[in-house]
Amino acid sequence: MRWLTLLCEMAMKGEFDLIETYFAPLASAEPGSLSLKDDAAVLSTNQGMSTVVTTDCLVAGVHFFPDDPPETIALKLLAVNFSDLASMGAMPRHYTIAAALPRSVEEPWVAQFAKGLREGQSRFGAVLVGGDTVSTDGPLTLTLTALGEVPKSEALMRSGARSGDEVFVSGSIGDAFAGLKVLSGQFQDLRRKERETLIARYRTPTPRIALGLALRGIASAVVDISDGLVADLSHLCDASRVGAKIDSDKVPLSDSIRSLVESSQIALSDVLSGGDDYELLFSISSSKINSLEKVLKDGEVKVSHIGSLTKSTDVEFRDGNDLLDFDRTGYQHF
Amino acid sequence: MRWLTLLCEMAMKGEFDLIETYFAPLASAEPGSLSLKDDAAVLSTNQGMSTVVTTDCLVAGVHFFPDDPPETIALKLLAVNFSDLASMGAMPRHYTIAAALPRSVEEPWVAQFAKGLREGQSRFGAVLVGGDTVSTDGPLTLTLTALGEVPKSEALMRSGARSGDEVFVSGSIGDAFAGLKVLSGQFQDLRRKERETLIARYRTPTPRIALGLALRGIASAVVDISDGLVADLSHLCDASRVGAKIDSDKVPLSDSIRSLVESSQIALSDVLSGGDDYELLFSISSSKINSLEKVLKDGEVKVSHIGSLTKSTDVEFRDGNDLLDFDRTGYQHF
Repeated sequence: MRWLTLLCEMAMKGEFDLIETYFAPLASAEPGSLSLKDDAAVLSTNQGMSTVVTTDCLVAGVHFFPDDPPETIALKLLAVNFSDLASMGAMPRHYTIAAALPRSVEEPWVAQFAKGLREGQSRFGAVLVGGDTVSTDGPLTLTLTALGEVPKSEALMRSGARSGDEVFVSGSIGDAFAGLKVLSGQFQDLRRKERETLIARYRTPTPRIALGLALRGIASAVVDISDGLVADLSHLCDASRVGAKIDSDKVPLSDSIRSLVESSQIALSDVLSGGDDYELLFSISSSKINSLEKVLKDGEVKVSHIGSLTKSTDVEFRDGNDLLDFDRTGYQHF
Repeated sequence: MRWLTLLCEMAMKGEFDLIETYFAPLASAEPGSLSLKDDAAVLSTNQGMSTVVTTDCLVAGVHFFPDDPPETIALKLLAVNFSDLASMGAMPRHYTIAAALPRSVEEPWVAQFAKGLREGQSRFGAVLVGGDTVSTDGPLTLTLTALGEVPKSEALMRSGARSGDEVFVSGSIGDAFAGLKVLSGQFQDLRRKERETLIARYRTPTPRIALGLALRGIASAVVDISDGLVADLSHLCDASRVGAKIDSDKVPLSDSIRSLVESSQIALSDVLSGGDDYELLFSISSSKINSLEKVLKDGEVKVSHIGSLTKSTDVEFRDGNDLLDFDRTGYQHF
C-alpha cells in the first residue's frame, strides 16, 4: 500500500495532504483500514460468511471518456465491481483502489473523484480500506478490488442453471449502449431529458445489490450484464452446459430505446448485444417462481421473464418466428 | 471480473484461449476461484483469523523497465505486495491481478509472465483467484491485490513502537537502488556476477514473509522498506510518535555496496535513502530481544541491530559523530 507515493508527489507540487484530506475520511468507518496509514488493512469476516472478491480495471478512452466528470468515473468504478458482487449474491463491504494518474491530474480532479467515491459508499454501503497511487505517461487507469460477503455455500454462480429453468433480466436493456452513442453525437433528435437519462445509464450504472441478495436460495444461476445480454447469456449457458430460447419481444426496453428501434435508428441486435447495462440476468427453476414473485414485490427494480433454458446448447433469440442473427457475440468498447 | 475481455481480444487476433491455458491453472489450488470463470471468487477465512488486504500498482517505465523479462515483472509484482503482508505479520493466501496491456503485448509475453506468477506462487505460497485484463494505449500497468491472513489482534503495525525500543533491519540495504543504477549503465567496473546480483535485488526482491510471521508477538512496530530506509523509518516513527538514532555504520551493506561507498562511486546517504529493498525494518522492546534471537536462530535472513528509538521525534542517522544530511526523504522512481 503506497498512498504515500501520491502524498510525496503532490507535496512536491506544493499541494497539501490529499490523502488526509480526501481519502482517509472515506476509510473512517472501518477501524481495520488503519486510516490508510499502514502497509495493509486488517479486516474481520463475520461469522458464517465467505469473502467474495472481484477486480475490475477501467481505462480512460476505453471504459469512460477522459473528460467524464470525476464523480461519475468514481461511481462507475464502484458500480462495475459491486455489480460482480451482486451477481454472486454478496453484500459489498470493503474496497481498495489503485490509480495510475497522468501528470495532468490536479487536486480539484482528485477532490471530485473522492466526492464520487463518498456518494457511492453511501449508496452501496462499502468502505475504502486501502490503495495505491502512481504516475503514468499513459491514460488514467483505475483498478478497484471489491470485497463482499455472502453466507457460506449461498453464493450465486453462473454454473447452476438447468434446462427448463426460466430466464429473467432486471431493469431495461440497451440504455447504456445508447448512452455511449449519445455521447458520441448520435440520436440528437431524442429529447434532452431522454439523452441525459441514457448518458446516466452509461456513466453511472446501478449495481443490483438488493436484487442479488434477494436471489440467494432462489436463482439457479446469475450473471451481471457487462459484455451485453447475448454474450453474458452465452457465458451463463456455457458455465451451466445448457442453451437458451429468448423471446426478443419480452426483453425489457426503455421507451427511448423502443422508439429508436421502431424508427430504425438502432438495430435490435445491437441493443441486445450492447454492453455496460450492469443488470442481472438469472435463471430460476419453475418451482421457485412463486418465491421470486414474493421477494420482488417490494423490490426497487423491475424484473422481466424473457425465455427459458434448453438442453441443446444453442443460444437463440427469436423475433416472432425469425431467428435473430448477431454479427458479434461480445461487446466492443469504443 | 472480466478475464473474458482478454479472451475476446486475443481470440480476434487468432490467439487461442490464453486464460484457460496460462491463468486458470494458477487458480486450480483454490476451488473458490471458480476457475476464474465466474464474476468473483468466494473465499473462506480460517477460524480465528483476520484478512489482511493490500494493493500495489506497477507501471512500465516507472517501477520496472518495459523490456524487463516478463517473469521478473510478475515476481516483482507479487513480491512488493507480499512484502506489505509480511510487514503486517500476515501469511499470503490469495491474489487478484488487473493488467492494462499495450496492444504490442503478445502471447509469448503472457506465457512468460504467467510462468513468473507460477514461480512466485510456489515460492511465496498464494493462489490466483481473479483478475481483469484490458487494453491500453499507455504503458503496461499492473495492479495486484494481495489477501493474507493473520491471527486476530496479532497484526503488526507501524504504530506500536515506543521510545527506548531497539531498531532492526533484515538483509542488506541499497542493493536494489544500486541494481537500478547498474541497469542504467553505471558501476561497469563491478564484476559481472556482482552486477547481476544487484540487478536481481532490484528486479526480484524477496518479501520477508517468514520473518514477518516470526515477529508476531515480538516486534512493537514493523514497516517494509519500499521508499528507502530513511523514509520508511520516518513513517514508522511518525506513526508511533517517536524519533530514532541510527548508527549508519551498523546499517547492513552487501560487499558490493560497501566497495562502491568506499570508492566514492555512491554516496552513503543515497544508499540509505534509496528504495525498493523490501527488507523489513522493525522495533523491539529490550525485554524481547531474547525472543527475537530465539526465532532468528533458524531464520533464513540475517537481521541487524542499527539503533534505537527516542522520545524526541527527530530521525537521525550518525556516521561516528557526524549527523548525515539527506537531500531527500523519499525514494524517487526513475
